[in-house]
Amino acid sequence: MGSGLHIIKIGGNVIDDDVQLQSFLEKFAALQGKKVLVHGGGKIATRIAADLGIEAKMINGRRITDKAMLDVATMVYAGLTNKHVVSSLQKFGCDALGLSGADGNTIKAIKRPVREIDYGYAGDILVDSVNTLSIKKFLEAGFTPVFSAITHNGLGQLLNTNADTIASALAVSLAKIYETKLIYCFEKEGVLRDVDNSESVIKSISPDEFEKLKLEKVIYEGMIPKLDNAFEALSKGVKNVYIGNALNLHKYQQGEFGTCLLSK
Amino acid sequence: MGSGLHIIKIGGNVIDDDVQLQSFLEKFAALQGKKVLVHGGGKIATRIAADLGIEAKMINGRRITDKAMLDVATMVYAGLTNKHVVSSLQKFGCDALGLSGADGNTIKAIKRPVREIDYGYAGDILVDSVNTLSIKKFLEAGFTPVFSAITHNGLGQLLNTNADTIASALAVSLAKIYETKLIYCFEKEGVLRDVDNSESVIKSISPDEFEKLKLEKVIYEGMIPKLDNAFEALSKGVKNVYIGNALNLHKYQQGEFGTCLLSK
Repeated sequence: MGSGLHIIKIGGNVIDDDVQLQSFLEKFAALQGKKVLVHGGGKIATRIAADLGIEAKMINGRRITDKAMLDVATMVYAGLTNKHVVSSLQKFGCDALGLSGADGNTIKAIKRPVREIDYGYAGDILVDSVNTLSIKKFLEAGFTPVFSAITHNGLGQLLNTNADTIASALAVSLAKIYETKLIYCFEKEGVLRDVDNSESVIKSISPDEFEKLKLEKVIYEGMIPKLDNAFEALSKGVKNVYIGNALNLHKYQQGEFGTCLLSK
Repeated sequence: MGSGLHIIKIGGNVIDDDVQLQSFLEKFAALQGKKVLVHGGGKIATRIAADLGIEAKMINGRRITDKAMLDVATMVYAGLTNKHVVSSLQKFGCDALGLSGADGNTIKAIKRPVREIDYGYAGDILVDSVNTLSIKKFLEAGFTPVFSAITHNGLGQLLNTNADTIASALAVSLAKIYETKLIYCFEKEGVLRDVDNSESVIKSISPDEFEKLKLEKVIYEGMIPKLDNAFEALSKGVKNVYIGNALNLHKYQQGEFGTCLLSK
């Protein structure tokens, strides 16, 4: 086992607000040791798609990625957002390296099989999707990989992939090489017992407590797949998973950050 | 002096035609040894800008990069085009790594000083712009860097930069580490004595002959800055500079490719 690694995922709300984003990135840059950033898309892609006359298609709250929308996602996630994040991190002294899954063949995915719904160019991550050898080369050379949520299938096709899933897949794969901690940053203080009270952060959640909180509807909707991802990562060797407010990242190394998910 | 390195620049016309692009990329992937690809933008950025209602501003044939146009350039060059090229190269077995100048802090530029014209977010490359240490790490780790024409100023600002200039700056800087050859690929067979006759390729041009060909108006307009860049690269340590048809790249290693520019 090598030294430690932090995989940090930043969500759309922070990406959409440049003041918040810069504040987060400064804190991320200050985090000691090896680290990887994974960023979601934010609302810019939807806005640019609309400006281009491309209609955003959703089924059951999931984006359908047709060819036009894939092009917009590639432009915005891997281009505009990724390069803005990377150049900002360089300003803060962090030697960031922006990546899609195609770059260095770091993350291969498969086009989601068509069953009831054709999700279009949505990429699913498989067990062997992550090229740990490539990513290790970047980390050992002193770079901080910054992943956008675009992968490829190895046959020349780019694919739009969920950023939470990318973060957990990276964490699980890299946990074989590094003691890996996964941190999901978003706009709330952590998992809240009362969604209207930011003071009601649940400090830690075990898998049993997770099931109970779902039954009690304390945890619902978008938090469920996020936490499913997180617990799966823990069961597959990730050391710790945290979920908390992006703007509190500086408190993480003092042990005061959001909700800590436990492996048992 | 280490082993050899090829820096290959591909222009807009080939980028715009995916059949030609794939044919070129397959040949590029097959080229033996260490290599770097630099790609221009093509017409997609202009089209997308128009679709977004952003007017392309030109003065003296040069693009003025306002904030809106910089965003489009970043989306298209560093996002859509770069990731399409990278995923295609991966398909052809080349371990491509897409980069802007911000990634790994590979190329820093300065915002072009305002004199008679304010070019906006146009980046000029300086003598020490290229971070050869970063690029060497990528090359030695087995990656093939693929540069889009976006750089940064190190202070969080992305800049739109001429791709020909990036190619020659990379060649000059990397010539200190590798025996470096620079190949400009475009849609013609080479420098032509008669622009309407593709058989009239001038096999080699010395600096003196270049001056003569300019006076005779055999070389004019867009070819002049391209060749100026090339001769400057030769005078600064680049071993050879070639200019020829992207689709003939497979003939390069047989010594049958376009026009060879001579250092004296």
